[in-house]
Amino acid sequence: MRPEGLKRWFPPLDWRRGYGSATLASDLLAAVIVTIMLIPQSLAYALLAGLPPEAGLYASIVPILIYAVFGTSRVLAVGPVAVVSLMTAATIGQVAEAGTAGYAVAALSLAFLSGAMLVLMGVLRLGFLANFLSHPVTSGFISASGLLIAASQIGPLSGLRAEGHSLVDQLVSLVRQITGINLPTLVIGLASLGFLFWVRRGLKPMLQRVGLAPRPADMLAKTGPVLAIAASTLAVWGLSLDQAGVAVVGAVPQSLPPFTLPSFDLTLLRELLLPAALISLIGFVESISVGQTLAAKRRQRIDPDQELVALGAANLGASFTGGFPVTGGFARSVVNFEAGAATPAAGAFTAFGLAMAALFLTPLIAFLPKATLAATIVVAVLSLVDLSILKRSWAYSRADFAAVAATMAVTLGAGVEAGVSAGVLLSLALHLYRTSRPHVAEVGLVPGTEHFRNINRFSVETDPAVLSLRIDESLYFANTRYLEDLILARVSGDTAVRHVILMCSAVNEIDLSALETLESLDQRLRDMDVSLHLSEVKGPVMDRLRRTKFLDHLSGEVFVSQFEGWCKLTQRCASADLRQHAQR
Amino acid sequence: MRPEGLKRWFPPLDWRRGYGSATLASDLLAAVIVTIMLIPQSLAYALLAGLPPEAGLYASIVPILIYAVFGTSRVLAVGPVAVVSLMTAATIGQVAEAGTAGYAVAALSLAFLSGAMLVLMGVLRLGFLANFLSHPVTSGFISASGLLIAASQIGPLSGLRAEGHSLVDQLVSLVRQITGINLPTLVIGLASLGFLFWVRRGLKPMLQRVGLAPRPADMLAKTGPVLAIAASTLAVWGLSLDQAGVAVVGAVPQSLPPFTLPSFDLTLLRELLLPAALISLIGFVESISVGQTLAAKRRQRIDPDQELVALGAANLGASFTGGFPVTGGFARSVVNFEAGAATPAAGAFTAFGLAMAALFLTPLIAFLPKATLAATIVVAVLSLVDLSILKRSWAYSRADFAAVAATMAVTLGAGVEAGVSAGVLLSLALHLYRTSRPHVAEVGLVPGTEHFRNINRFSVETDPAVLSLRIDESLYFANTRYLEDLILARVSGDTAVRHVILMCSAVNEIDLSALETLESLDQRLRDMDVSLHLSEVKGPVMDRLRRTKFLDHLSGEVFVSQFEGWCKLTQRCASADLRQHAQR
Repeated sequence: MRPEGLKRWFPPLDWRRGYGSATLASDLLAAVIVTIMLIPQSLAYALLAGLPPEAGLYASIVPILIYAVFGTSRVLAVGPVAVVSLMTAATIGQVAEAGTAGYAVAALSLAFLSGAMLVLMGVLRLGFLANFLSHPVTSGFISASGLLIAASQIGPLSGLRAEGHSLVDQLVSLVRQITGINLPTLVIGLASLGFLFWVRRGLKPMLQRVGLAPRPADMLAKTGPVLAIAASTLAVWGLSLDQAGVAVVGAVPQSLPPFTLPSFDLTLLRELLLPAALISLIGFVESISVGQTLAAKRRQRIDPDQELVALGAANLGASFTGGFPVTGGFARSVVNFEAGAATPAAGAFTAFGLAMAALFLTPLIAFLPKATLAATIVVAVLSLVDLSILKRSWAYSRADFAAVAATMAVTLGAGVEAGVSAGVLLSLALHLYRTSRPHVAEVGLVPGTEHFRNINRFSVETDPAVLSLRIDESLYFANTRYLEDLILARVSGDTAVRHVILMCSAVNEIDLSALETLESLDQRLRDMDVSLHLSEVKGPVMDRLRRTKFLDHLSGEVFVSQFEGWCKLTQRCASADLRQHAQR
Repeated sequence: MRPEGLKRWFPPLDWRRGYGSATLASDLLAAVIVTIMLIPQSLAYALLAGLPPEAGLYASIVPILIYAVFGTSRVLAVGPVAVVSLMTAATIGQVAEAGTAGYAVAALSLAFLSGAMLVLMGVLRLGFLANFLSHPVTSGFISASGLLIAASQIGPLSGLRAEGHSLVDQLVSLVRQITGINLPTLVIGLASLGFLFWVRRGLKPMLQRVGLAPRPADMLAKTGPVLAIAASTLAVWGLSLDQAGVAVVGAVPQSLPPFTLPSFDLTLLRELLLPAALISLIGFVESISVGQTLAAKRRQRIDPDQELVALGAANLGASFTGGFPVTGGFARSVVNFEAGAATPAAGAFTAFGLAMAALFLTPLIAFLPKATLAATIVVAVLSLVDLSILKRSWAYSRADFAAVAATMAVTLGAGVEAGVSAGVLLSLALHLYRTSRPHVAEVGLVPGTEHFRNINRFSVETDPAVLSLRIDESLYFANTRYLEDLILARVSGDTAVRHVILMCSAVNEIDLSALETLESLDQRLRDMDVSLHLSEVKGPVMDRLRRTKFLDHLSGEVFVSQFEGWCKLTQRCASADLRQHAQR
C-alpha cells in the first residue's frame, strides 16, 4: 500500500506521473481562490500570535512549498492557524515582550524546535502518539480555544487592551477599561463583524438567487473578507480615522520572505521545549484530522509518519524565513479541496501568489484597521466552537463527558497548555481506573447453541457445581488483585461449586503480576476443593503461558472452547456434540 | 463478607468474642519472641533512618497498639522497616542535618503527613491505587533498596562514612577513605556479620540435632541477634574498645515514648509532601502484601481500605510519640505468625514488652557498637534481595522485564523515589502502548462446532465474501485510528469481501472516540460496497450503543453470536442449526 524507497520520502515522485493540462487548470484555479482567502487570514493570525502582519504572509509561503514536496495529502494547506497562533502568543509572551525583536526571534526558535521535534517523531515513527489525544479532548480543547481567541479579539475590536491569560482575567481587565473604548474602532469592528457573518450566512444564497451555480457562489462568498478589508482600509484612509485613534497595520516592508536565523540560546530553547512539544502534537493532530477527512472523500490515504516529517520540515522552513509555527489548517484546506485542487502543485501556485502579494500588495494595507483583522479572526474561530460535544458525550458516557468538561474548563481557566495536559491525563487516568475494576459476568449456555452469555441478561442453562465466569478485561497488574478478591468472594459464598471456569475470550494479555495472582488463586481454590479451569485462551496469551510452569501446576484444564469445558465438566451434552468435538 | 457499621472501623469488636485462655497463651508466647527480635531491629532501623536508637523503640510501641485497634490483619506487626527507614533518611537528609533536633522533628512531620494521607486514602477508599505498583516494580524496587541499604552499612561496619545517595557515589567515597578503616570496628562488624549469617543458616539445624523440635528451634534461632548484641556490647565494655574508635550507641534515655509534636511549618510540609505520598504508598504495598499472604494461610481476609486507616493512624501515633514513619514489616509479621499469634492482642503485649525495654534495658546498651547493628541490618535486607525476578520476567515478557530492570537501575543510580516513579510510569506507558496497537485475528469456524478461532493457528472454515475479524482489545481513543487503518487496509486489498463481521467478544468498552471511528469505518466500507456487522457485543457495551443512532445507521446487523452471523451471511449451516437458533 505505502510507496517504498524514495517515493515514501518524496511523494511528488508518485503523483507527478499523469500530471496534464486538466490537472494544471484545476490546481491553478484552486490556487487563485486560496490565495485571495489566505491574505487576510495570514495577516490576522500573525497579529494573534503577537507578530507583525507580514510574518503571517512569510509563514504561508515557504512552508506550503516544503509541504508540497514532502506531504502525503494532496490538498492540505499548511500555514498559520488560529489555535497554534494563540499557543505561540501564550508561549512567547512568557519569554519576551510583544513587538520586540526578541519576540520575533523567539517565535522563529519555537518554529525551529517544533519542526525538529516533528521530524524526529516522524523518523522514529511516533505518529501513534497523537492517538492519545482523544476526540473528546481535542474537541473540547478546540472549542475552548475558539472562545479564548474570540475573547482576546474584543480588545482590538474596541480599541482596548485585554490583559491576562485566562478568560476571566481578560474579561475583567476589559470591563475595567470600558470608558476608554475608541468609538471609530468599535464602529469599524462591529461593521466588519456584521458584514463577515452575513457573508458566511447570507451571501451564498443571494448569489445563487441572482443566478450563480452553487459552487461558484460558495467560492465567491469565501472571498468576502477581502471585500471587508478593502472597504475598511479605504474608509480609514479617506476619513483619516488613524488620526482619530483607530489602530492600523502601518508600514509593511515590500519583500519576499527574508532569510532569518532562529536563536539557539540554550536557556531560551529549554524554556520553549515543553510548549514546543505541545504545539507540535496539537498541530499534528489538527493537521492529520483534516488531512484524513479530506483524503477519505477521494479514497486516498495519508501516511501519519510521513506527515510528521512534512509538517516538521515546513516548520523548519518557517523558522528560516521569518515565520512562526505552522500546521495544516482546517478552513484553508477545505477551501483548497472544494476549489478542486488535484495535487500539491496547487499549494506551490498558492505560495507563488502569496509571494507576489508580499512583494506588491503590502503598500496597500498600511491603512488596514486592526479591528477588521480582529473581526476576521472572530468569525473564523467561532465556527470552531461546537458545544454540542458536551451534550453528546454526557448522553454516551460520563467518562468522555468528564474529559471534555475538564479540558474546556482548564483551557478557559488556566490556558491552552494546561487544558490539553489536563484532558489527556484525565482520559488516561479514567481509562486506567476503568480497566482496574473490570466487569466480570457469570455466564451460562444459551439453550440449543454452543454460545455462553451473562446469566443476568439472557435465559441460559447453568450447573450448580460449575461456575463459569467471563473476565471482561486483560489481566494486568492494575486489576489482578481486584479480580482475585472478586472470584474468591463469589466462590467462598457458594459451597456447591466444584469447578470454576474462567472464560478468557476477552483476556488479551496476562502479565507477570497476573500470572502470579492466577497461581495464588489456583492454590486458594484448591484449598477449598475447587478446581480452576480456563477456556478460550487466545493464541498469543497461550504461547506465553506455555513458557511457564503454570499449566503443569493448574488444578484443572485449559479448554479450547467454553462449550467443550461445559460438556466435560457437567456431562450434560448430547453424545453427538461430544463426538463432533472429539473429531477435531 | 465485610463487617458493617462500628465493627468495620473497630475490628476488635469482631474478634474479642471467643477470646479465651488458650488464645491468651498463644498471644503471650508470640509477644515474648517478637519483643526479643524487635529490640535490636528497632535500634538498627532508627540508625538507618538517621535517628537516635531510642526512636526505633518508640516507633514500635504506640503504632503497634493503634494497629491492634484499627487493623484487620490478626498477625501484622507494625513498626520501622528497612525500606521506609531508608526513604525517611533520604527525604529528611534533604531538609535537615542528621543528628540535629530539626532532623528528628522533620521525621515526626513526615510520619504525620504520611499518616494523614493514609487515613484520607482509606476514608476515600483509594486502596486500589496500590494496585498500580505492579509486582515486577515492587520486587525490583525492594531488591534494589536491599542492595542500597546493605551498601550504606559498609561505612558503619568499617568505621568509615559513606557519602552520596546513589550506590556508585557511596562506593566511590568508601574506596577513597579506605586507609581510614578502624580495625576494631571492622573486626566487630565482620564477626557479627559472620555470626548472624551462621545463625540464619546453621543454628536451626544444630538445635534440631541436639534434640529440639523444628518450631522451637526456629524460634530460638530468631533470637540470635540478641546474642550478637550482648556479646559485642560486653566486648566493647570489657576491652574499652570505645576508646579505640569503635562507635557505640552511647547514653540512651530511660523513658516511655515521650509526647512529641511534629512541626507544622508550611514550607517544610510542602517539601515533604511528595516523599510522604511515596512513602505512604510503598509502605502500604509492603504491608498489604505481607498481610494478605499471612491472612490467606489461615483463610482470613483483610480489608485494604481499613488497612489504610489503620496504618495511617499508626503513623499519626508515631508522629506524636517520638517515632518516624512505620508500616507492617515482613520479618516481624512472619515471626509473629509462626510464633502462633492468634489475635492483635499479641501486638499489644509486644508493645508492653518494648515499653519495658525502653524503661529498663536502655542503660545496658550504651556500649553497644553500631557495627553490630549495621550487621543485623545487612543480614535482614540481603534476604530481601531476589534477583531471580530478572530471569523470570525476561523469560515471560519483555515488558515486565523492562519494568523490573528500569526500576532496579534507577533505584540504584538515582535513589528510591526516582526508582519507584520510573517503574510505575514505565509499566503504565508500556501497558498503554500495547493496548494502542491491539492484536486483530482473522477467524474462521472450527468444523463441527459453533466456535471461531484464528485462521493462522487452527484449521478452520472460511468464506471469501465474509471476513470475520476478532478485535482483541477494548476500543478506545488510543487505538481506534490504528484499528480503522488496519481494517481498511485488509478490506481494500480484497475485492471478494462483501461483509465484514467484527467479533466483539474481547471488546469491553467502546468510548466516544471509538464510536465515531466505527461510524466513519461503516461509511467508508459502504463506499466500497461492503457491509459492516458486529457480533457477540457484550451487554454493557450494547446498552451504551443503544443510546446512540449508530445502530440505526449501521449498514449491517448486530448478531448475538458469531455463529449466527456466519450462518446468515454464508448460508452454509445445516437447517437444523438454523432452526435451533430461531428457537431462541
